[in-house]
Amino acid sequence: MASTLYCALLHYPVRDRAGETVTTAVTTLDVHDIARSARTYGVARYYVVTPIEAQHKLIERILSHWSEGAGRRRMPERNEALSIVEARESLQAVVADIEEREGRRPSLVATAAAPRPRASSIGFGALRQRFEVEGSFLILFGTGHGLSDEVVAKADYLLHPVEGVDGYNHLSVRSAAAIILDRLRGRPTGAER
Amino acid sequence: MASTLYCALLHYPVRDRAGETVTTAVTTLDVHDIARSARTYGVARYYVVTPIEAQHKLIERILSHWSEGAGRRRMPERNEALSIVEARESLQAVVADIEEREGRRPSLVATAAAPRPRASSIGFGALRQRFEVEGSFLILFGTGHGLSDEVVAKADYLLHPVEGVDGYNHLSVRSAAAIILDRLRGRPTGAER
Repeated sequence: MASTLYCALLHYPVRDRAGETVTTAVTTLDVHDIARSARTYGVARYYVVTPIEAQHKLIERILSHWSEGAGRRRMPERNEALSIVEARESLQAVVADIEEREGRRPSLVATAAAPRPRASSIGFGALRQRFEVEGSFLILFGTGHGLSDEVVAKADYLLHPVEGVDGYNHLSVRSAAAIILDRLRGRPTGAER
Repeated sequence: MASTLYCALLHYPVRDRAGETVTTAVTTLDVHDIARSARTYGVARYYVVTPIEAQHKLIERILSHWSEGAGRRRMPERNEALSIVEARESLQAVVADIEEREGRRPSLVATAAAPRPRASSIGFGALRQRFEVEGSFLILFGTGHGLSDEVVAKADYLLHPVEGVDGYNHLSVRSAAAIILDRLRGRPTGAER
């Protein structure tokens, strides 16, 4: 594991069903489920990104419930997952935070459920190989109907969509994040996978 | 894809934190998220198993919201996922249902987050190979703190746990189901995974 992995769940800028750029609401379960997956696969920090200040308070309430008192005593492993969660107001602020920690800008990896207008995308195996040579990576997950085109365009990589068996492609972002982290950081493939 | 895959989410008999056998409550998001993952990976039916009759009514309300009227019009792909969901009162009833559809009993595959008291478990690659020779498979997911020992003992296979990078192993059942279905039914491994 040469490189450090970060991930971020964006609530802005993302698309709605019609492709318009919107801000979505933070949901408790996205915070929990993706924190648990991120912790399982050794992600250093999981950023929940929203420009809405009231939502930062919601995130803080979730985190403090599990880091203090009864929640922590009852389920210490949940606090261990949630302790990697950070709320930030923008993708730019996330990149700045990582840059401060790492001493250099992370490589940005956009994810999408379907092909997007962009020259090319990178496969899971090829990205794993990049982990061996580049310093740190920030995997971007979109809520709503996915990351806005501007985010996809400015990322260093666009990851191949997770494809099922027949073209149906409507995983929850929680499930997609779990599968993507497993493909990128799970045990080596082979007969026993 | 020689064999037919089924999955079931058990709310009984499952373990609580202390290892006692309990019945857990059905949650809406477990129904949605696992239905979407199951549909993505070509699972024929996703059974939600609970002995509590009132919970069957809850499941029916979820399903009818998305199969009729506004829900269906607004998100037809959600109905497509939920249309594979069936509520059943017991694992026995699920097996009987599959036996009726397939003309023979499915092979039962238990899943667990940690090693369980049982002689051996099967790897993901090895189970994929079994898909080529056996007729149908029922993958069993447990809510709470996992399937009860009796379910694990009577299954034909116990699947290897999904392991992360350092022993932390507290995925949500929604995330674990997504990863397991991807490992069992996702595109062939190799450089491009």
